[in-house]
Amino acid sequence: MKNHWIAIDWGTTNFRAFLMQGSQHVSRISQPLGLLSVEKGQFAPTLQNLLHAWLEEYGSLPIVMAGMVGSQQGWHEVPYAPLPCNTQDLASRMLAFTTPWGSPAWIIPGASGTSSFSQPDVMRGEEVQLLGLAALRPATQHIALLPGTHSKHAQMLNGEIVSFSTFMTGEIFSLLSQHSILGRALPEQQEDRHAFLSGVKAAAQGAPFTHLIFSARTRRLAGELPESSVHSYLSGLTIGYELLALPAGQHAWVVGSPSLTERYQLAAGQMDLNLSPANGDECFIHGLWHLFTRLQGNE
Amino acid sequence: MKNHWIAIDWGTTNFRAFLMQGSQHVSRISQPLGLLSVEKGQFAPTLQNLLHAWLEEYGSLPIVMAGMVGSQQGWHEVPYAPLPCNTQDLASRMLAFTTPWGSPAWIIPGASGTSSFSQPDVMRGEEVQLLGLAALRPATQHIALLPGTHSKHAQMLNGEIVSFSTFMTGEIFSLLSQHSILGRALPEQQEDRHAFLSGVKAAAQGAPFTHLIFSARTRRLAGELPESSVHSYLSGLTIGYELLALPAGQHAWVVGSPSLTERYQLAAGQMDLNLSPANGDECFIHGLWHLFTRLQGNE
Repeated sequence: MKNHWIAIDWGTTNFRAFLMQGSQHVSRISQPLGLLSVEKGQFAPTLQNLLHAWLEEYGSLPIVMAGMVGSQQGWHEVPYAPLPCNTQDLASRMLAFTTPWGSPAWIIPGASGTSSFSQPDVMRGEEVQLLGLAALRPATQHIALLPGTHSKHAQMLNGEIVSFSTFMTGEIFSLLSQHSILGRALPEQQEDRHAFLSGVKAAAQGAPFTHLIFSARTRRLAGELPESSVHSYLSGLTIGYELLALPAGQHAWVVGSPSLTERYQLAAGQMDLNLSPANGDECFIHGLWHLFTRLQGNE
Repeated sequence: MKNHWIAIDWGTTNFRAFLMQGSQHVSRISQPLGLLSVEKGQFAPTLQNLLHAWLEEYGSLPIVMAGMVGSQQGWHEVPYAPLPCNTQDLASRMLAFTTPWGSPAWIIPGASGTSSFSQPDVMRGEEVQLLGLAALRPATQHIALLPGTHSKHAQMLNGEIVSFSTFMTGEIFSLLSQHSILGRALPEQQEDRHAFLSGVKAAAQGAPFTHLIFSARTRRLAGELPESSVHSYLSGLTIGYELLALPAGQHAWVVGSPSLTERYQLAAGQMDLNLSPANGDECFIHGLWHLFTRLQGNE
């Protein structure tokens, strides 16, 4: 029992928990209970309820959390760690507290810095996946792409996060397909690999984004794009546009769920980019394990 | 009475009509009765109702229409004129018909071509403003920016439209301010010139669009952008990003309403661009007058 602990990724829309035994997970919970579903001040009872079965069986296990749970809108705000940062920096800035039922708990800080394009930038949760990636795939340098609502492109040197940039790819795709003229009044959408790849190809030509997306309308008007494939085309456009920002000619990791990493690899193939997949859950668990052991002083 | 006619700009969301006497307008109607508000098959009664007072006074005046009224979703579809096109090309492709109450009526075709960024592109209505601009401000070459929901950047040579590109600036601004995380949960917004200009400045640095816009969140988190100024900042970002696509070092016209052209000029000033305003209504009326006289064979 002394090796059990709980790893949690608590984001804006999703909650995921892993019952851990050392560095291995033995069980998991996944619920659409992100921050937006938790009423102000209800984080403790919500979590106790979600973890009920594990707490019953193992008692007040240590809990390590990452993600938006540490934001202004979260349970406890944990200030961002400034770049560059490594495992030690993040571990030393964790917020420690005790839950009402007696679990020792920690929240990992996010990271903040200046993007490759001179904009202020922030992340919460992805820093853990990055540390996990560096631990699982040791190398002097890592370029990693973490796709999602707000994709992150990060660079690591010797296990240290040195820079990153956010791309609002997933959110922009949702806005365009659900609320714009491009996605309006469409029949049921089909997954269309050809339309996806033609979107990637269009994006790869380097047109300004607000011009590029209008092609989802003009190609439809011209009969080049089936009405049922507009979402696939928009997905190709937005992912292709994001991939243009990867440094050319260098290997990069794409860290996420198999369905998402596969989609990015398909686009990368069209653009002659060298992208290898890494499992997002494995990276998260491994990164959190490293932070937890650093915390315990037993690494 | 023989010199009276009616000029109409009928778009997706707005309807505007000008009672004309020769090349001068003597009265106008403006209603939020765009195509989206007109039920299928109800274009004739809707128009008759809108023009009631003028038809009563002057009888079945000739009516010349431009805009989305000639689209698939409009009254009568008029195929796009391919680029390059001039007044004669557009006049020869107008659709002529008679309204149920006996007015001779015409709908101007839109124009289609390949954008400067190799994407298929279309316009409906702006081609009339372009012809008007060329007639009002004669020159060998015109570069013109027509801002709006779907802004157009066009090039004209010797009065002929030779190329254009659409930028979804206005629509993207609405999506981001109304439906994205950037615009969510904001207090009442203020017009903030400083925030607008700092958005323009950020855009001018040339970051990829889906990365650039995230700065509306990070600058707010960092306390650099007041919560009540996020819309102004987003307006600066989207307009600044659009202006980056103008050819450097060349004079351009911005054709639109005074409030919108002023906004673009403010942004252009920040970016050292040479942008002169032209009144959008004047250009529209003048362009339609040229087409109407060409039609009458009396020019």
